[in-house]
This record gives sequence, C-alpha cells and structure tokens, in this order.
Amino acid sequence: MTKPRLNFEEHQQLGDRLRDIRDELVHLNVQLANAYPRSGPESAPATELEAAHEAVDRARRGLERALYDEHPRWAATSVYFSRREN
Amino acid sequence: MTKPRLNFEEHQQLGDRLRDIRDELVHLNVQLANAYPRSGPESAPATELEAAHEAVDRARRGLERALYDEHPRWAATSVYFSRREN
Repeated sequence: MTKPRLNFEEHQQLGDRLRDIRDELVHLNVQLANAYPRSGPESAPATELEAAHEAVDRARRGLERALYDEHPRWAATSVYFSRREN
Repeated sequence: MTKPRLNFEEHQQLGDRLRDIRDELVHLNVQLANAYPRSGPESAPATELEAAHEAVDRARRGLERALYDEHPRWAATSVYFSRREN
C-alpha cells in the first residue's frame, strides 16, 4: 500500500512545530548548563537535551529533502529552517 | 564556583515542559509513521524523532535523580513522569 506522504500544508505545520521544539530544547539546555556542572554525572541531562535537539535537526533536514521531492514548486528552505537560524 | 542547581519549582516547570515536548515528539512520530514507508530513506525522519524522544526521556530520568538528591522531602515521581505514562 502506498503511503500518502505529507501535503504542503502539513509540511508547513510540521516545520513550525519542530522549529518550536528545537528552540525550546536549546533554551532548556542553556538553563541546565547554567544550573549544573558541565562535566560529571550531573551534566548528563544537558547532554541528552543536546542529543535530542540534534536528532530533531536531522529529522528537519530529512523532511526538507522530502518536501523538495514531493512539492518541488512550493518547496522553500523557510519551511523547516528559518533564515535567522542559518 | 558552585552551580546553583534547580529549586523545586524549577524542577516542576522543567518536568512539565519536558513532558509536553516528549508527548509532542511521540505524536509527530506517529504522524510520520502513517505518512511515510517504515523502512528505507524516507523512514529516517521518524527514526530521528524517536531518538529525540528517547534522549528527552533519559534527560528526565537524570533530572529525577537530581530532584531526589537535591529536594528529598518534596521529590515525587510525578514531577518528571506522570502516573498515566508509567
């Protein structure tokens, strides 16, 4: 059975939500970096939040490739990555 | 210089935000699993979102340990993990 992929509006909504999640993970990581030592066992949660935001960024890059494959006429880098961030 | 750690209210707020992020990552992962093949290159973004939610869960477990170390009288498993989820 063929999977439906995402339409352009779904890509836009997903891009917005993943951007918000990424920004919040970065913000919380900074909060932890300021509150806890940056090495040793107490640094582990901040490291995990950094791993989470990097995984979210890899997902966004893969979804951007899918967007360009599926909707070449409407695709734009602003859907998954804002100019400000790049 | 000694780092301040988090007070109990900060742990509560962080627990709520990480729970929300975790729930949203799981929801978006389901959306992708329904839209794209579950193997091959198109499955990669869903796999990355799963990795992100697992990293967030590891961060929550580490922060729960910190909470019990820092605030043993007020610590509760409901701060980082709701009953419903466990």
